[in-house]
Formats: sequence, structure tokens, C-alpha cells
Amino acid sequence: MLPTLYKDSTYIDHYGNLKTGHIAIQDDLIQSVYPIEIDPLKDHRFETVVPSSSYLIMPGLMNCHTHIPMVLFRGLGDDLPLSEWLHTKIFPLEDKLYNEAVYFSSLLGIAELLHNGCTFFSDMYFFVEEIAKACSVAGIRANLSLGLMDPKGDSGLHQSVELYHQLKEAGNQKISFFMGPHAPYTCSPDYLEKVVMTAEKLDTGIHIHLNETESEVENIQAEYHCRPIELIKQVGLFKRPVVAAHCVFTSEQEQMILRDHTVLVVHNPSSNCKLASGIAPVNQYLKMGIRMAIGTDGAASNNQLNLFKEIHLASLLSKVSEKEATFFPHKLFYPLLCQNPASFFFPHQTYGIQPGGRADLIFIRKDYSHLFPQENLLSHLMYSAQGNEVEHVMIDGKWIMKDKQILTFDEKAIQTEFTKIYRDIAKC
Amino acid sequence: MLPTLYKDSTYIDHYGNLKTGHIAIQDDLIQSVYPIEIDPLKDHRFETVVPSSSYLIMPGLMNCHTHIPMVLFRGLGDDLPLSEWLHTKIFPLEDKLYNEAVYFSSLLGIAELLHNGCTFFSDMYFFVEEIAKACSVAGIRANLSLGLMDPKGDSGLHQSVELYHQLKEAGNQKISFFMGPHAPYTCSPDYLEKVVMTAEKLDTGIHIHLNETESEVENIQAEYHCRPIELIKQVGLFKRPVVAAHCVFTSEQEQMILRDHTVLVVHNPSSNCKLASGIAPVNQYLKMGIRMAIGTDGAASNNQLNLFKEIHLASLLSKVSEKEATFFPHKLFYPLLCQNPASFFFPHQTYGIQPGGRADLIFIRKDYSHLFPQENLLSHLMYSAQGNEVEHVMIDGKWIMKDKQILTFDEKAIQTEFTKIYRDIAKC
Repeated sequence: MLPTLYKDSTYIDHYGNLKTGHIAIQDDLIQSVYPIEIDPLKDHRFETVVPSSSYLIMPGLMNCHTHIPMVLFRGLGDDLPLSEWLHTKIFPLEDKLYNEAVYFSSLLGIAELLHNGCTFFSDMYFFVEEIAKACSVAGIRANLSLGLMDPKGDSGLHQSVELYHQLKEAGNQKISFFMGPHAPYTCSPDYLEKVVMTAEKLDTGIHIHLNETESEVENIQAEYHCRPIELIKQVGLFKRPVVAAHCVFTSEQEQMILRDHTVLVVHNPSSNCKLASGIAPVNQYLKMGIRMAIGTDGAASNNQLNLFKEIHLASLLSKVSEKEATFFPHKLFYPLLCQNPASFFFPHQTYGIQPGGRADLIFIRKDYSHLFPQENLLSHLMYSAQGNEVEHVMIDGKWIMKDKQILTFDEKAIQTEFTKIYRDIAKC
Repeated sequence: MLPTLYKDSTYIDHYGNLKTGHIAIQDDLIQSVYPIEIDPLKDHRFETVVPSSSYLIMPGLMNCHTHIPMVLFRGLGDDLPLSEWLHTKIFPLEDKLYNEAVYFSSLLGIAELLHNGCTFFSDMYFFVEEIAKACSVAGIRANLSLGLMDPKGDSGLHQSVELYHQLKEAGNQKISFFMGPHAPYTCSPDYLEKVVMTAEKLDTGIHIHLNETESEVENIQAEYHCRPIELIKQVGLFKRPVVAAHCVFTSEQEQMILRDHTVLVVHNPSSNCKLASGIAPVNQYLKMGIRMAIGTDGAASNNQLNLFKEIHLASLLSKVSEKEATFFPHKLFYPLLCQNPASFFFPHQTYGIQPGGRADLIFIRKDYSHLFPQENLLSHLMYSAQGNEVEHVMIDGKWIMKDKQILTFDEKAIQTEFTKIYRDIAKC
């Protein structure tokens, strides 16, 4: 089939700059990008030509730390501190989870991701085969991991190995798998060593919560006489690529470890604020050149899966926490939500709107009053957009959402099933 | 005409609780509210019966500190400190403003307000007659004031008196007028005394910026040997009702002054963060029982006019700034965005969804995936809603927006005019 041409687009190029031009997509890749002054129809043939001047086209956003099925617990036990929230609300409810509950909740969560322009998420949870099934149905890209804790013994490790092979055999190229040790305070150093050995065998990465609260850091220090990131360095965790969620309380020494290894530090500002954990030192991370991305965490502690709101908050916190308005400027939108996670998760792929780039794209309608003056669109992405401006979502060159309608599953039917499950789990 | 019945609604009652029932509206007022178990059709007659089970109905939100025409400068000069931003970007551009520029910018700003469920705003700016014209065309409720600064002499005072009478004569009951001295650091005590005298003569209130930055407080202290709120108390400002925007840096003494007078403290967290001013001590204000509301400030320093995002940020900042997750719980949504401003601006009116309450209502669609589980809607208003869920807006019983289409003016045409003006002012 000949390529499709998206004509007269405003788009964000692979350097993060705002451009106008014509984007040709063939199968799952961007075939060519023509400057606006050139008329590609003169010398090239296309299957279809789509007038696209109403849209800002950019790569899909990447949500790098989620627990996607936790939309089921959205709004349950708000306004509680982390420990009380976990022990009195979340853990007892999680004990009641079952396959269908996770499957339908995942699809509801994925619907929310898609509506807000997210084409990839990096997740840690349980019932991973159900989450994978939901991803396959939805057609979304994901990196999944099974949350592992020490007391559960080695069964989680075996299950992870099985899941890895199972997902590989299923052949969905859009799903990858990492090992998911929950955190240094729930996994002993011995256990983490086994996790690393397993990750090495599978040649895969590791997704872990690090230094989310002050007290967990203090507890590790009391027990091991070093800080958590130093501890996991000793057990060899950084031999693998690491998704390091939170990193709210880190020492200079720990920051240097993060900088000197293949690490993606994932900042989850809403969750860290809502649970009153603290504000991560992102200005320091940015200054040091630590690779950073943004996550929403689970919807139970956020309570949403919206990267537009998330990065906006990150920027505001960065400025106010050090009383420096020039910090976290709007030009960080593209690297943090697109480029950095792509270079971490897909280091060998051409990325962004350029020939050979993967056609994971979102089409943002520009004609909302709150996106005027349209001359300042890059600023509006950071400071004015809400998420709902995303009109179409394309993954691997296929339409997943068109005119705000999800095409790969029946969103309304999922909402109905979800509501039954919620009533079943939360109210009984 | 008989009342219209909105049947099977979910709504927020005048205590801020979530209820289900049937709401009867006649002319500009709520006539009756029936509990869900009662069928009002049995004993009463209605002009129309509107099935309303898809919506959450609540009073329109009130944006208590804005500079509405500043949407014109949205995204211009981001990521700059307050003083540099004002002097190198905003002031030079404001010098270029003219009647039509303010009129069309105001309508664009009002469009954004309506789309995000706002039915009232409290504004300070210039060209107030143009803003009033835009309000009348749009049908929105507003309290307007003319920004006054000392160096401009008494002409602003005279202009304010004229505006007051002009607006009164125009007979639009939805528009009220306050005196608008910019701030204690731009208005001398002598000048503020004249403002108070004028406000007394007109029997109206005062809208002022207070203690927004640390440096302005220090400057006042250096010059007058007291803090700004103490200073304006001495000149008698609190003899009138006062809209006190910002109040980021206040002493205990000043907080007691705010508490002991008819004051509405307006918290503008996005603007205070974006300009790196600081975080207002809202937990302290709430604890002391100071009457608080939320504002977006102008779109140039926010960069949006969305109270859903604004109060969400307020809650997150409140929790993280004192590391206390129980602070600023979701139940504050209704008092801060509806009840407190209503009791300040309209102390003699019945307010809220109860018989006799004014029919300034918004209809929020409940079926977005990010508002599930629907059982926890009050929490979702604070932590998950974006603003775009507002489907209809009614002011004084009249539809102003229906199915996201503004009915009182042509939003697209306004965008076109706005763009011409922006190019004229910003680029030349």
C-alpha cells in the first residue's frame, strides 16, 4: 500500500521544535516528512491525503510509572497518609482482586490513557497476564512487570520468568517485560540479588520504587548503614537498565549513582503531593543530566492518569520549590514525556517525527479557546492543555482512537463491567 | 410559564453533599428540589421534563481573581520571574491595548471560563467598559474593577465612579463593580484613603492584590515600618468588603486582621508557583476560619482559567507543603469554589441547589472513564476532573452553553478576531 499523507500539519519534530509540514506514514512507520513549502503531491503518490491543518501532531506521550488496574480504587481513601492508606484501604481491597477485575480495570485505565494522549505505559502490578490481555485488546504499547515482595518467596521470580516467556511467545511486539521488585524496603538484598540474576538471564530491565518517603530511607539506613540506592548498587541492580520510580529523597551520592548508570528516574509529582511524601529534587536531577521521565503512579494515589496535568504540576513545583521561575521551562515537555522514555525503553529505534520513526502519534485539536494565541503552542502544551484536546491516537500506524472514540474496544461496555466489579469488591 | 424539571439528577446540595433527586427550575430560580424517591409528576405540572441522570448538576464555579483580557498574552514570556515578566513583556504590551483588543480577548477568556464550568468571575483590569460589554454579550455574571495605581493620579478614581454609575444605569443585574486599587506597593496610603472614601460613597467593595511576593512586603516594611495588611488597615480599607488576592506572605498579626473583617482571601496557586512567588499558608487560613476562595489570576501567569486544575493544585500544595495528607480534603471543593464566594459577593441571596437558589448551574457529564468509579464523584471533582466534563452551563435559568457550544456568541468568530489582534499587538 502507498503511504498516507497528513498534509499541512503542525507537528513537533524529533528535536522538540514546532514545525509545519506534511507527514507521510507507511504501515507502522513515518516514511517522509516534507517541509511546508514543498508540495509532495507533485512528485509522489499516496494512498490517501488527509488535510491536517487543525491538528498539532506529536509522538504519543509515555507514562513511565503506573499501576494501571488501580483505577478501581480511585477516590477510595483519599486524604490519608501513605501508610494508613495502604494498610487500611488498598491492601485489604487488593486481596479481593481476581482476573476479570484486573482485566476490566486495566481497560478502563487504558481508555483514560488514550483519551489523554498516552500511547505507552510502564507498569508494575499483579495479574500481569490480564493486564497484557487488556493491552493487546486495546492495541497500546506497554512495559509490564509483576510486583515482587520478599515475603512471598521465590514464586514471584518463577512467575516472572514464566510471564516473560509467555508474553514473548504471544508475539505482541508492543509488550515488553521487566522484573518488578517492589522496593528496597520490601525486598531484602538477598532477594534483590536473585531478581538481578533473573533479569540478567532474561536480558531485561528492572522497575522498582526508590526513596519515595523519608521514613523508608531512614529504616534502610538503620538496618543496613547505607542509603537505599547505595544498597541496591551493592547488590548489582544497576547492572540492568532500571526504571526508578519516585526518588523523592536522595543524597548527592545516590544522585551520582543514578546519573552514572542506565536509569530512568520517574517523577510522580501528584502522587508524592497527594500522599504528602515530598517534592523530588528534579531541578538537581535536570542539572546533573540524570535521565528523567514522568509517571502518574496508580490512579488510587493521583487520582488520574493524565500526563498533561502531571508535567504541568512538575513544572510548577520545580519553580516554586526553589523560588526560581526560570526552572522547568515549557521546552521540557517533549524530552520528559517523549524522548527520554523512548531512548530508555527503545534505544535501538529511530524515534520521533522523522523518516523511520515509529508511527505512535497523537493528534491534538488546536482550536480550543484555551490554546489561543495559537502562536505559542509549545507553551500551551505545558501550561494550558488539559489532555482532552487529544482527538486521535495512532499506534504502529493504526488508529486506536478517532474523534475521541476508542476503536479497539467498547469503552461504554467496559465502564458497565467495571462498575459491577467495583460494587462487588469495594462495597461487600 | 411552568417550571422545567430536571429529573433523576445527581447534584450537590447547599451543604456540599452529593444527592440524587429532581430539580425544578422556574425563570431564574430553583423552585423546588424533590428527593429521588418522590415522583414530582404525580402532583405537579411542568413545562418540560428533562431526563438528567447522565449529569452531576451543581452551582457554577466562581473564579475570584482574574484579569480576563490577559488571555491575549498567554504563553508570552513564560518561565521568567515576576518583575522581569511584568517589565519586559506585559507592561510594554499592555501599552498597546485598545478597545477592540480588550473586548475580543475578554470574550475568548469568558469562553474558556464557561467551558470549564465557571459562571462568575471577579476581575481587575483596564478598559472595563469593554469587559462589561463582553460579559453582557456572553451572559456571564461578574464583579469588575478598574485597576488603580497612584502615579496615574485621581483620574482612575473618577473613572471608577463613572463606571460604577454607567454599569448601574445599563441595568445588567449580573454585573457589579468594586474599587480596584492594584496593591499597597503601587498605591500610597493617601491614595488608598481616597479609594476607601470612594468605595464608601458608592457603597461597594474593594479588590486588591496583597502580599504576593516577599520583596513587596519587605519594601513596605522598610518604608512604613509595618506590614502591608497592617498598613491598609490603618487607612481604613477594611471598612469595606475586601477581595484580597494572593496573601502568600502574611504574618500572624495580618492573618488575624484578615479573619476579623469582611474579607475574601483569594488563593491563586498556579500563578504563585509559575512566577515562583511562593505557596500561600492556606492550611493556616483554613484553620483560622478565614473565608477563602480560589482564583486563576490572569492567563498570562497561569496560563489558563480553569478552576478544576486550580483547586486540585491548591490541595496538592497544601498536603505536600506541610507533609500532611489529611489537609485540604476533597470536601473543600464546594465551599471554596461555590459557597464562600457566593456568601461574600451575594450575602443576601439564597444560594445553592435549594428552593429559591439562583439557577446558575453547571451540568457535568459523569460518563468519562476518568470519573469512574462513579460512586466517588465528590473526590473526582477535586482529584480527577479536568474541566472539559462540563457539558451545559445555565446562568439565571438561561442556557449559556449547551452540549459544549456557547449559545450567546460565536466562539469561532471570536477566535478569528482574537488572532488578528494578537498578531497586531504581539508581533509588531
